[in-house]
Amino acid sequence: MSHNSFGHLFRFTTWGESHGPALGVVVDGCPPNLTVSAEIIQHDLDRRKPGQSRFTTQRKEADEVEILSGVFEDERTGGLKTTGTPIALEIKNTDQRSKDYSDIRDKYRPGHADYTYDQKYGIRDYRGGGRSSARETAARVAAGAVARLVIPDVKIRASLVQMGPYKINYENFSWDEVDNNPFFCADKSAAQSWEPYLDGLRKSGESIGAVIEVVAEGVPAGWGAPVYGKLSADLASAMMSINAVKFVEIGAGMEAASLTGTQNADEMRAGEPAPYFKSNNAGGILGGISNGDPVVVRFAVKPTSSILAIRETVTTQNKNTEIVTKGRHDPCVGIRAVPIGEAMMACVLADHFLRHRGQTGREGPTGF
Amino acid sequence: MSHNSFGHLFRFTTWGESHGPALGVVVDGCPPNLTVSAEIIQHDLDRRKPGQSRFTTQRKEADEVEILSGVFEDERTGGLKTTGTPIALEIKNTDQRSKDYSDIRDKYRPGHADYTYDQKYGIRDYRGGGRSSARETAARVAAGAVARLVIPDVKIRASLVQMGPYKINYENFSWDEVDNNPFFCADKSAAQSWEPYLDGLRKSGESIGAVIEVVAEGVPAGWGAPVYGKLSADLASAMMSINAVKFVEIGAGMEAASLTGTQNADEMRAGEPAPYFKSNNAGGILGGISNGDPVVVRFAVKPTSSILAIRETVTTQNKNTEIVTKGRHDPCVGIRAVPIGEAMMACVLADHFLRHRGQTGREGPTGF
Amino acid sequence: MSHNSFGHLFRFTTWGESHGPALGVVVDGCPPNLTVSAEIIQHDLDRRKPGQSRFTTQRKEADEVEILSGVFEDERTGGLKTTGTPIALEIKNTDQRSKDYSDIRDKYRPGHADYTYDQKYGIRDYRGGGRSSARETAARVAAGAVARLVIPDVKIRASLVQMGPYKINYENFSWDEVDNNPFFCADKSAAQSWEPYLDGLRKSGESIGAVIEVVAEGVPAGWGAPVYGKLSADLASAMMSINAVKFVEIGAGMEAASLTGTQNADEMRAGEPAPYFKSNNAGGILGGISNGDPVVVRFAVKPTSSILAIRETVTTQNKNTEIVTKGRHDPCVGIRAVPIGEAMMACVLADHFLRHRGQTGREGPTGF
Amino acid sequence: MSHNSFGHLFRFTTWGESHGPALGVVVDGCPPNLTVSAEIIQHDLDRRKPGQSRFTTQRKEADEVEILSGVFEDERTGGLKTTGTPIALEIKNTDQRSKDYSDIRDKYRPGHADYTYDQKYGIRDYRGGGRSSARETAARVAAGAVARLVIPDVKIRASLVQMGPYKINYENFSWDEVDNNPFFCADKSAAQSWEPYLDGLRKSGESIGAVIEVVAEGVPAGWGAPVYGKLSADLASAMMSINAVKFVEIGAGMEAASLTGTQNADEMRAGEPAPYFKSNNAGGILGGISNGDPVVVRFAVKPTSSILAIRETVTTQNKNTEIVTKGRHDPCVGIRAVPIGEAMMACVLADHFLRHRGQTGREGPTGF
Repeated sequence: MSHNSFGHLFRFTTWGESHGPALGVVVDGCPPNLTVSAEIIQHDLDRRKPGQSRFTTQRKEADEVEILSGVFEDERTGGLKTTGTPIALEIKNTDQRSKDYSDIRDKYRPGHADYTYDQKYGIRDYRGGGRSSARETAARVAAGAVARLVIPDVKIRASLVQMGPYKINYENFSWDEVDNNPFFCADKSAAQSWEPYLDGLRKSGESIGAVIEVVAEGVPAGWGAPVYGKLSADLASAMMSINAVKFVEIGAGMEAASLTGTQNADEMRAGEPAPYFKSNNAGGILGGISNGDPVVVRFAVKPTSSILAIRETVTTQNKNTEIVTKGRHDPCVGIRAVPIGEAMMACVLADHFLRHRGQTGREGPTGF
Repeated sequence: MSHNSFGHLFRFTTWGESHGPALGVVVDGCPPNLTVSAEIIQHDLDRRKPGQSRFTTQRKEADEVEILSGVFEDERTGGLKTTGTPIALEIKNTDQRSKDYSDIRDKYRPGHADYTYDQKYGIRDYRGGGRSSARETAARVAAGAVARLVIPDVKIRASLVQMGPYKINYENFSWDEVDNNPFFCADKSAAQSWEPYLDGLRKSGESIGAVIEVVAEGVPAGWGAPVYGKLSADLASAMMSINAVKFVEIGAGMEAASLTGTQNADEMRAGEPAPYFKSNNAGGILGGISNGDPVVVRFAVKPTSSILAIRETVTTQNKNTEIVTKGRHDPCVGIRAVPIGEAMMACVLADHFLRHRGQTGREGPTGF
Repeated sequence: MSHNSFGHLFRFTTWGESHGPALGVVVDGCPPNLTVSAEIIQHDLDRRKPGQSRFTTQRKEADEVEILSGVFEDERTGGLKTTGTPIALEIKNTDQRSKDYSDIRDKYRPGHADYTYDQKYGIRDYRGGGRSSARETAARVAAGAVARLVIPDVKIRASLVQMGPYKINYENFSWDEVDNNPFFCADKSAAQSWEPYLDGLRKSGESIGAVIEVVAEGVPAGWGAPVYGKLSADLASAMMSINAVKFVEIGAGMEAASLTGTQNADEMRAGEPAPYFKSNNAGGILGGISNGDPVVVRFAVKPTSSILAIRETVTTQNKNTEIVTKGRHDPCVGIRAVPIGEAMMACVLADHFLRHRGQTGREGPTGF
Repeated sequence: MSHNSFGHLFRFTTWGESHGPALGVVVDGCPPNLTVSAEIIQHDLDRRKPGQSRFTTQRKEADEVEILSGVFEDERTGGLKTTGTPIALEIKNTDQRSKDYSDIRDKYRPGHADYTYDQKYGIRDYRGGGRSSARETAARVAAGAVARLVIPDVKIRASLVQMGPYKINYENFSWDEVDNNPFFCADKSAAQSWEPYLDGLRKSGESIGAVIEVVAEGVPAGWGAPVYGKLSADLASAMMSINAVKFVEIGAGMEAASLTGTQNADEMRAGEPAPYFKSNNAGGILGGISNGDPVVVRFAVKPTSSILAIRETVTTQNKNTEIVTKGRHDPCVGIRAVPIGEAMMACVLADHFLRHRGQTGREGPTGF
């Protein structure tokens, strides 16, 4: 057991605080002989990086990753390959302005983990939330970049599908649009309408929640395991472990509650080389095991709790006070949660791929 | 790692199939010297037991639990106490009618795990879904009954809060009503209206989804752990591992996506002996650690896929066919998911209580 | 984490006490489609079973195993096959004479775990040592029988190689002799000389220690994993977890301390299809990974502490007293440790086989 | 599961290779509010550091540790305290001379893990053994220094008790001598005689094995857990995971094989506040649980396989060749294994302390 580790065969452990010298991740159990480079990992990190647009925190972090172990030169190409030993990745913190936080040293910020960390541990690094800061998610994204190498045939993409009360129109859905707007949104038209909306919130020092959808295509039938190692259970844990996430659903999710059995159960038809499903209410998972359809997960991120409005709170001495959370924050943390959700999906799938291969000796289904 | 185990310090492993001779659970890591009895565990099992009303499966199972290890006589009372060693609990299957399933031996039931088990393992116990059957949840409920003994000051209750499209009215919410209707519903009036609705579905061989809310009161601040051992992440995994669950949320959950930071972040006020929160959008969890407020989780159960309607599917030879799932099924499996949700909540909290005590030496928060 | 579980991908959890109604094991993670039967498991259990000769405890236990889950009929053969789900095995206790232990209820037996269980848990099942009884090892042997099915090409055998101060002569070593004497001893001549020696000890109510050697042939190069998952580390843990074991060594083991580097390092020569080692001081393991040579482990079992001599001890009230441990005991528990050592070797190797396959996608080495 | 992690509640993960840019460890689960500093950790690292005398490798490594996370300023003292979050410790490699290894790039060094890493992973960092290098043990020592803070009342010391065939005389045993000679030897006289002996070996390019004894005093009764989480099993795994270790014993260990039950079982006498044992053949552990006596573990380290003698081996192409291992090596790696053994003892005990506290709510025994 390890509080700060995730996964079993593909397992990573993250460390670091918002305002410490660095943060990082150790990836253990990665298969050997995968081609890797700092650039490959950096690519994913750059998508999560702060300061990409006016809609994310203006903290300036290069988020430059260094590979410290677990790789060796590929004699053939001169590039790097994984060796099967722990891959240590490190990212230096370069723009931590600790003084930004000096005025909240003795107050608990509503909606943040300040109070709970203090009550649990009796000590807390109040600078930027310390360990509870979303800066930790950079480490996940780095791990996720490695995970993608383990399952190269799986395509993992995500989109913001709701900002505040405004949902996208799935008829407009196009993965090609995701990188064309500052929201990682697959609906061009929705993205356009969100821009003035979020500008308004941002200027007023307000924040808003969001919903992210992550889709993994190319997952063969057979990954996952009953009954506590269900693919769905691990995905739920993965997504819920991301900062500010308060709900997770698979496939039809919440809507399944309102459906009848006839409406919900995806019918099957014979196909080549395997049967197919006429619909995907299951979100690609039946009984905790992938069925060959795209794995579809959605999760909601609450609005960041760092806002300019005056809020009632208490001091660390249990006295009433008020607080205004200054600092450099995201008006919609859900935006940067898009690459984070992809990373967690990649990590869960890479782990289950290895678990499936370990138990059955196959990489996919039995087949027909 | 263990596919069929859950938890870390309070850890249980379940085994058994729908139509095998028995099913059971081994609870490891339970604190010693807790008063226990078969009756205490039976009490919880009886709430989940099939055949309690016309709204649940008519399979006749006594679900009688036997304690096979991990207890010893309490010399003072003559009763039993836990010894700190593994508690093995066993429930015999007594009403398995395997012939009910002979006609689906060569077909995959839509919405069930038949196809995925077969593709993963290349072999499946087709009788009643084998390991994927919801009969496994009896073992969880037994484990949950033990878990409750570990955290006697925590009160865990659950209610059906939505059946199909019909939600309860929270203004009518009364825990006292939960045992007064066949739906474990805290809203008497909603329960009354659901009765004819579900009767209609049942008679037509149809099924429907539901939403369950589980609330744990008396959880002190400080339980849970960053960042992958978050209380919320473990609850998400716990609930999502229950058969047919497709959605999990904590506190405001999905609604948080639509809230602004000002609306969502629960303000704090000084109190005795500790501060209190003016609202509980957080569902009792901040940064993955309990904040002293009730822990509130909701999860959605899809409609059971065993219905009388003719559905398209394929044979195990990948040929088109049709299927009607006869047998004895629940028109709304969500009903029996109520005690199951309570059990999983109890197991997660018992585990985190022990983990918190292990790391900090305290059972609750630092305090003021 | 689980105190009473062993292994990772091939993982088993045991439960039960010496004088409870039953004991058992749940094997999780077993590959599917392995042919299994109660008889196969019984075969191994029978070798460990008490009462096989006058040199083991006279407790009469049939040690009959029942398979309760995790298997399904093989349509082709009518036999059973593993399904990949948890295999629950159960053995009823039938000859527990609790009154044998009534006089030690208030005393701690020297050399036994009575005192430590009481001090740890504040409660203990004093009947036959409760959970600390060597009866638990029946469950391991059952798990080991399943493990052997996972690695059918690996041949695991063991021999008693020392009884008290008397070592075997390795020049006489023949695996064929192991089942021809009551000691599982590969040296016929040593076994003959041990017989009167142990008879003498037995009649005087005395006991003696022993050393067991376990050899696994057919382990391909590449199993095991650095650095805390070393094959050698897991074997050490496995053997040291057996009741009464105080010493474990791999290959040259203790002798390696007295060797020079020149003497110790096994030289290599080119071979087909792979190089070979000119000696096996390494015991088949280099850097925690198998090298293709036989894996050789030895462990020492202390003399059973249940003897007829009067020994000084204390009561559970910390008062001086004396004790004579009556009951039905083994004069040399090392004898029955032979099949137990084999079982633990099988479990460790099966686990590492699956782990290796999971990480690398291969079942053995890269090759040449 | 994690190949490169050790422990459960006090859990650490190491990473890094001999000739990479750095190596390190992440300690997770450490209790909060422990006073810590780089100096405290450095103290232990300096004892293991190469180049302390002519009897250890002449590689020049400052082994300077940096604390990157998991600590925060203690407002009262200005020093650092643990926060309960992951403690990342990093040590830069500064004296890696990769060219030393260029000539062994295509050969397997006998006694080293070159062959097995290559066969397992299909790729290896041949520079200094890569991940299999004993440089990894620096990370363990750093973790052990943190572990000591968790159990401040436990005193952990170790001594070299045998070098090659020469054992110490226990009548001369004095902990005070350990730091007075280059061998960490508690027998002054033995240390003196070893000096010319090892000089001779060193000059001839030869190496020799050794035995280390680690003793933990102040361990209360009650730590450890049946049956696979035995203190003895975890210690065996811990010590066997150290590079070059081939045997582990607890208490009387191997000698117990030759003892009768009467000789071996430690008698008890009433005492204040608890009974005491008249002898300690058990090595402080009964049934896997500490009994209040000193915990005594011995382990043997084989001679380093890097020697100047010409040895037969094969190329990576399975061709016969010869090898002479130049480079900077320890004539007796057992010397530096002394602080490593202490560190592993500290880590095992810290973990079991937390596990015991988690399960029972007590830090020690029930008492009388």
